[in-house]
Amino acid sequence: MTTSAVAQLQAEVTRLRHELSTIKAHEQAPESSETIFVGQYLVERLVQLGVTKMFGVPGDFNLGFLDFVEDHSKIEWVGNCNELNAAYAADGYARVKKGSLGVLTTTFGVGELSAMNGIAGAFSEHVPIVHIVGVPSTSQQKNKPMLHHTLGDGRYDAYYRAATQFTIAAASLQAKETAAAEIDRVLTECLVMARPVYLMVPTDLAYERIPSYRLKTPINAEPPQNDPDVEEFALDEIVKLVETAEQDAIILVDACAIRHNVIDEVSELVKRTGFPVYAAPMGKTAVDEAYERYGGIYVGSISHPDIKEKVESAKLILSIGALKSDFNTGNFTYHIPASRTVELHSDHTTVQYAEFPGIGMKRLLPKLTARLQPFRDDARELSVPPFVFPVPTEDTDIITQSWLWPRMGQFFRQKDIIVAETGTSSFGVLEVPFPTGAMFVSQILWGSIGWTVGSTLGVAMAGQDLGYKRTILFIGDGSLQLTVQELSVMIRSGVTPIIFVLNNRGYTIERYLHGMERKYNDISNWKWTHLLNTLGGEEGKTCQSHLVRNKAELSALLDDTTFASANKIQLVEMLMDPRDAPSALKRQAELSGKTNRYVAELPSGIGEAV
Amino acid sequence: MTTSAVAQLQAEVTRLRHELSTIKAHEQAPESSETIFVGQYLVERLVQLGVTKMFGVPGDFNLGFLDFVEDHSKIEWVGNCNELNAAYAADGYARVKKGSLGVLTTTFGVGELSAMNGIAGAFSEHVPIVHIVGVPSTSQQKNKPMLHHTLGDGRYDAYYRAATQFTIAAASLQAKETAAAEIDRVLTECLVMARPVYLMVPTDLAYERIPSYRLKTPINAEPPQNDPDVEEFALDEIVKLVETAEQDAIILVDACAIRHNVIDEVSELVKRTGFPVYAAPMGKTAVDEAYERYGGIYVGSISHPDIKEKVESAKLILSIGALKSDFNTGNFTYHIPASRTVELHSDHTTVQYAEFPGIGMKRLLPKLTARLQPFRDDARELSVPPFVFPVPTEDTDIITQSWLWPRMGQFFRQKDIIVAETGTSSFGVLEVPFPTGAMFVSQILWGSIGWTVGSTLGVAMAGQDLGYKRTILFIGDGSLQLTVQELSVMIRSGVTPIIFVLNNRGYTIERYLHGMERKYNDISNWKWTHLLNTLGGEEGKTCQSHLVRNKAELSALLDDTTFASANKIQLVEMLMDPRDAPSALKRQAELSGKTNRYVAELPSGIGEAV
Repeated sequence: MTTSAVAQLQAEVTRLRHELSTIKAHEQAPESSETIFVGQYLVERLVQLGVTKMFGVPGDFNLGFLDFVEDHSKIEWVGNCNELNAAYAADGYARVKKGSLGVLTTTFGVGELSAMNGIAGAFSEHVPIVHIVGVPSTSQQKNKPMLHHTLGDGRYDAYYRAATQFTIAAASLQAKETAAAEIDRVLTECLVMARPVYLMVPTDLAYERIPSYRLKTPINAEPPQNDPDVEEFALDEIVKLVETAEQDAIILVDACAIRHNVIDEVSELVKRTGFPVYAAPMGKTAVDEAYERYGGIYVGSISHPDIKEKVESAKLILSIGALKSDFNTGNFTYHIPASRTVELHSDHTTVQYAEFPGIGMKRLLPKLTARLQPFRDDARELSVPPFVFPVPTEDTDIITQSWLWPRMGQFFRQKDIIVAETGTSSFGVLEVPFPTGAMFVSQILWGSIGWTVGSTLGVAMAGQDLGYKRTILFIGDGSLQLTVQELSVMIRSGVTPIIFVLNNRGYTIERYLHGMERKYNDISNWKWTHLLNTLGGEEGKTCQSHLVRNKAELSALLDDTTFASANKIQLVEMLMDPRDAPSALKRQAELSGKTNRYVAELPSGIGEAV
Repeated sequence: MTTSAVAQLQAEVTRLRHELSTIKAHEQAPESSETIFVGQYLVERLVQLGVTKMFGVPGDFNLGFLDFVEDHSKIEWVGNCNELNAAYAADGYARVKKGSLGVLTTTFGVGELSAMNGIAGAFSEHVPIVHIVGVPSTSQQKNKPMLHHTLGDGRYDAYYRAATQFTIAAASLQAKETAAAEIDRVLTECLVMARPVYLMVPTDLAYERIPSYRLKTPINAEPPQNDPDVEEFALDEIVKLVETAEQDAIILVDACAIRHNVIDEVSELVKRTGFPVYAAPMGKTAVDEAYERYGGIYVGSISHPDIKEKVESAKLILSIGALKSDFNTGNFTYHIPASRTVELHSDHTTVQYAEFPGIGMKRLLPKLTARLQPFRDDARELSVPPFVFPVPTEDTDIITQSWLWPRMGQFFRQKDIIVAETGTSSFGVLEVPFPTGAMFVSQILWGSIGWTVGSTLGVAMAGQDLGYKRTILFIGDGSLQLTVQELSVMIRSGVTPIIFVLNNRGYTIERYLHGMERKYNDISNWKWTHLLNTLGGEEGKTCQSHLVRNKAELSALLDDTTFASANKIQLVEMLMDPRDAPSALKRQAELSGKTNRYVAELPSGIGEAV
């Protein structure tokens, strides 16, 4: 049976268990006359799941549902400027609000399709989002009139069909009798599979009354137990490997350790075994980067040489939550043979070449920790290179990539959330050790530039819920142009991120991939420090903007306590060289460029017809 | 056979004819050694079809192809701020550049999905756009590595599958032997069917060399001839109806008269027959609104009473290019029975209840004109209400919807292109008579707010090509927030639209649909007159912004010759009342609201769980 088939079976087991307990709850209160609108039921479920914010844009077909949201005291409607930014915000919110999920509501056709790239990115990176779409009434869906927002040819299912490419479950609510069960089904799948789901809510159905007793049974998103025999067998095999390796084992944490909620279990494993631990880029801050046995970021052949050596010479690698995308692995340059690898995942385990479908890490990890704890004393003798990034001394006063990131390392604090846009930022900040309790947020697999503006909004809001102190965004000028309007929503909603804008006059990551001198990699130069004031802020009162031209000005700003306290939203424009990039990006782009197999740069004018 | 099956058959006939003539051309030059890169072939075809601008955003996988574009002297790369705006711009360009098409280039996954709403809107409204997507190499597509911009589960076909919901043809180029034929196929379909098509260009294939002789045979986008017997029969039936109606016939022009390029044929019909002529909203400016026998806009029951009476009492309605969406028909309130209607379309004709599949209006219209010309003298005796909109005298000095639109009517000139955003603008400007040679652009069926910012960019560029003088945009503040960054590209590219921003503090069209007092219909108030200066302009030099608070200030500005000359890009913020809307919008919203079947407004607090 394939791993995905096993996963689906597990999900089905979970769902059936939930149905059963719901029916039992009903039997205990058979004559309950309490009813609730379908739209309210949906909102209540979200509140139960810890959702405090709903993102989206109002539009015909979702307005009636939005009344329920606006009127509820525990969930706040965040009106975004557009639906793509709303999806990005829901994604950022979900990444921070572990155990909960992101929610956006859009309208039929025009709204939902605008969000599609955001949903696909969440699918790709295992982020749980519910995409609620307000759609025409059930009778309109049968009769299919040529309403606005339709395709003009009578097809009412086209958006659903497109959505199912990028969601793990989808429901089109059609009848009040099944509405609650359908809502619960997709919410459960969303959480268990940590992926987006799609939910169509017709205008009439939102206002049908249904029994409310189901709400008494919370949604169960716990992963099922592993088959005990298989689990025991796999554990034995892993322990044997550790013994054979004579405890020369390291732990490598990656994306899904975060996305599938095993951070605490991993922390226990790490502490109790004492094995050295490293992170792939997408696993950065899955473990505390200040931990003395944490060695830093492993990215295949473009890793720091000491890290590369330690990881690739270890006799055993315990990989947790691997997601081996190109930018996450130095373009697939892991030199770690399967014979030395154990991989733990949310829905299967691999031990060397043996695969154990259905053995998920959530249940496995505590047992593995218990079995490996005896190795601790020996394990702690293995050395770990210090993970540091000292600020270099440079002749020039210009802000360089090589200086910027370690200097920011001095600025970061505990309980910061640092968001890095795809580009020089995401590559540059990788090798900066983050303080204890700081979180790293980036979109390294999907890599949609502009994502971080919307996601910073959601990140900051979830951060407030969880006691994080500052949200700090690094974004290139090119990327900021795609999604700039969401600064307005940040201002209106009162979040106070610090936004560092790398003004290097263009799409630097593209320059390095191809077309260093090409005009298409240039952009307009905006008045970056005017943005906050133009988009709803009052400079000096509700927002603050800064321009730093050189190292001295930036350092002075970073050391300023008012600035660092992040009490109002701030934007810092940093002037940088268009051709400057972190060495990690240069190396990655070089490798990616070879795989892209573009012809070597042709002389200018070759584009003309021969 | 269904009409769409017939249309497909016709398209196939056209394609086969083209193939045949191409092969013949090759036979005439069999030893030709001239070759061209596949990417260049594509660019050459676009240039042949009259394309002067390509919209889009650079991204990995499309950069190599963009070199061909940047290097070509006849086509200009317009780097947009994001892909949705790029699709909107391609749409606007195509609407103005009749006979040509709009083109945008995006990148795999992250780019193309961002554009999806723009492509779907073009599909809905019959606009020919080519969506070129730079994708991984053919070998990467076979091996399916986990590249950035992929879904992480190995699916490389998901974006294609989603795209096919919203395009009339799609090609994934896989081999150099078939590349040119596939390119020609989708370009032909795009033009013949006047709908978007999708074209995946792998990085390696863009740089394969292929023979160039095919370029000698231009793409043939002429619709096929009608079956002569059926056509003759249909013509006889129509003429009989006109005689029975004793020449009490009117012509009603609609969207597809514009979208399927029969404007000249319709103009001939109108002049030679002398029948009164009216337009549906989506047909506005299909005929010259200054023509003395043009009576104005017919929108079912929300029409001006005189127009309603004239149209609905006519004994015969010759409808040309109908697209009967809700906002285009006063929520489906045409009181015109089929027994009094003849409908001409691009791919079929309806005479009362009889349908004639495959009889297209492009070929039919000139013959119909010839047959109906004898009726001219009698037809010209039918009266036509004067289509005027006098500026009302009002007590208040506030800028009202009822005053604004007729006042703008005094400002419009010949060869203006007037773009109206979905909302108070699209409804308000409908009843304003446009001068001869002015064009109306709006998205009345798809209705995606924010569309007009991107489309105005494309409209202005195509307008320059065709000798239009001014591009004038009316957009609400709420809509502008979705897509504001494209103002930057307008500035950089040197187009000089006049942008009127209706600052009425929110989504007024939504207020009227539902939630008049609701917070979700409020927006942030931006400093609208700072936008151009912030997004790359220099106030007073390359851009000009104005704030008008009342009728007197607006009137003075409209009368200012420098302002009216539109020599630099200008933004005019107009302060208006949030609850003010054109009567057409109020009537439409009332009708739509009833169909949406929201429950009547519930008292506040009802959103809480019971």
